[in-house]
Amino acid sequence: MDASHQTVSLSDLDRFCRDILKGCGANEETANATTRAMMHATRCGVDSHGVRLLAHYVKALEGGRLNKTPNVQKVSGFGAVETLDADHAQGAVGAYAGMDRAIDLAKKFGIGAVGIRNNSHFGAAGAFSIEAARQGLIGLSFCNSDSFVRLHDGASRFHGTNPISMAVPVAGDDPWLLDMATSAVPFNRVLLYRSTGTQLPQGVASDEAGINTTDPNLTEMLAPLGDAFGFKGAGLAGIAEIFSAVLTGMRLSFDIPSMMGEDMQTPRQLGAFVIAIQPEAFVDRATFEAGMQRYVETLRTSPARAEAFVMAPGDREWKVAGHREANGVELDPVTRAAFLELSGAYGVSMPA
Amino acid sequence: MDASHQTVSLSDLDRFCRDILKGCGANEETANATTRAMMHATRCGVDSHGVRLLAHYVKALEGGRLNKTPNVQKVSGFGAVETLDADHAQGAVGAYAGMDRAIDLAKKFGIGAVGIRNNSHFGAAGAFSIEAARQGLIGLSFCNSDSFVRLHDGASRFHGTNPISMAVPVAGDDPWLLDMATSAVPFNRVLLYRSTGTQLPQGVASDEAGINTTDPNLTEMLAPLGDAFGFKGAGLAGIAEIFSAVLTGMRLSFDIPSMMGEDMQTPRQLGAFVIAIQPEAFVDRATFEAGMQRYVETLRTSPARAEAFVMAPGDREWKVAGHREANGVELDPVTRAAFLELSGAYGVSMPA
Repeated sequence: MDASHQTVSLSDLDRFCRDILKGCGANEETANATTRAMMHATRCGVDSHGVRLLAHYVKALEGGRLNKTPNVQKVSGFGAVETLDADHAQGAVGAYAGMDRAIDLAKKFGIGAVGIRNNSHFGAAGAFSIEAARQGLIGLSFCNSDSFVRLHDGASRFHGTNPISMAVPVAGDDPWLLDMATSAVPFNRVLLYRSTGTQLPQGVASDEAGINTTDPNLTEMLAPLGDAFGFKGAGLAGIAEIFSAVLTGMRLSFDIPSMMGEDMQTPRQLGAFVIAIQPEAFVDRATFEAGMQRYVETLRTSPARAEAFVMAPGDREWKVAGHREANGVELDPVTRAAFLELSGAYGVSMPA
Repeated sequence: MDASHQTVSLSDLDRFCRDILKGCGANEETANATTRAMMHATRCGVDSHGVRLLAHYVKALEGGRLNKTPNVQKVSGFGAVETLDADHAQGAVGAYAGMDRAIDLAKKFGIGAVGIRNNSHFGAAGAFSIEAARQGLIGLSFCNSDSFVRLHDGASRFHGTNPISMAVPVAGDDPWLLDMATSAVPFNRVLLYRSTGTQLPQGVASDEAGINTTDPNLTEMLAPLGDAFGFKGAGLAGIAEIFSAVLTGMRLSFDIPSMMGEDMQTPRQLGAFVIAIQPEAFVDRATFEAGMQRYVETLRTSPARAEAFVMAPGDREWKVAGHREANGVELDPVTRAAFLELSGAYGVSMPA
């Protein structure tokens, strides 16, 4: 079997990421949080935010952009609200810590909201929302990021792909999990279409004048979700922006240096924002559970278009997760090459 | 001047609505809340949710679907969270009461969330979010409604147009105000295109098989926001659904009788959900204000496409509001005819 098509088990992939991160000097908390967030994405098939980011994070940790031994701490609090300073940790460190605090606050006050300062790229927003759902609560996560998406009728990169995520527990089932960029498509989609020479769908990407294009090679920016009604996508990006950057005093998207830029020394000063909600603060557990079950069951069994089927948010992800847990995952060639290099540099055996 | 093209002043329109509602026996609180919510929409140019609804609300109040003298009360509370029972009030009564409580809770706990049970159609969601912004807080409002929007790849009406709204104060300026249906377009747009014989944009409406159509006469359901990426719009509708219906134990969209149905006797058992956030619970006021100002100023002055311009959420609405405050508003023929009837029935002079 050609090594480039070998699959690796999720558990060994987890081991590899942890050991590489510890090998480069990241503390236990950083290795753990970074690995968990990447593995959430890889497990669910969100490969853009999965283990392919390991080499990038290592570079940022080695360069000093990310703090290998951050001291994440609470800097202020008021009732059901707290602000954490992540001390320029890898972004998942701050986001997991924030969600942990939000869950505690929600258990005390019914709802808890936490702003995270001096954070960085946190990966898939759903990784943190799902933590609340695993404990029976509703979780929401938001982040802004460097500019890549034009405004409605705009002709420059303005917002980041600013994700909005919410996870809701469903008794006896996988959580309802929405994790969406507020752009029409992720930029990775554009790159994929470039490499395959395919045309993009209408209304998802624009050239340098802000005019929609279906040519991935002319794409200079992404369109906000909604095409002709892109003011909605831009407004949703604004929700993530205001929560993540304004309420934390961190950088607005257009002030954030590019994630993939040359400078691996300077912290990027991103904010993030998480909310947890305790359902029982509103209704008894049985009513909540019956409501969610009826909602997702009716959704899944409702009529579909010819040759299509309907899914609840997260269904596709849990299906991929089931498959990958059983069969492992195939690494793309670029990630495999990067892993070989990391394996040699830190003396950690390749995932199998 | 032809009477059908006369404009009426906003203040006299306000007087007319209040007096008609009181004339039909609604209590002071109901007349006040219903009028405020309708006038917010009419002032801002959201005519679908403006005073054109007066005749409908009167019919529902007279029929008993809406309670003319509701006793809105808190039924439970836990920390920063409360649940109100609106006693089948007109929907704005419950939503304003809910936002008032959320604001109080946010002042105490930094954030407050309120679920409203036994509510009804509340009009424009922005009407309630803006109340928080007027007091310096961030406000969010959500509601579900009777099914009108298919799922992504769905072939039946599933969600309501389930709005999401957020208002954020901007020092020395009108608030940032997002108020959006999670459908691609409102159904009123379809009706407008029907009456003018125009084709709809691509990907916003579907025929009875769930297949996209640009023919307004074939439109049986709306598409979720996002066209080819409509799972995002459907997921956002889910956020409004879970907050408004599941967390209140109220009806899911597909269980709600049609707003415009024959039965004007039976309460519809809608839920609603509001959140208020005190910015100072996260950052000092100066940092928050500077952040919002820089965000909206940079947005408004960022490059636009040729022959287009960019706006912050709410800018279009505040512009219309300025114009209508100065010049009044022209009533559409159907609304004017309904007003003449109400004027006669309740002995209230027409707005001038």
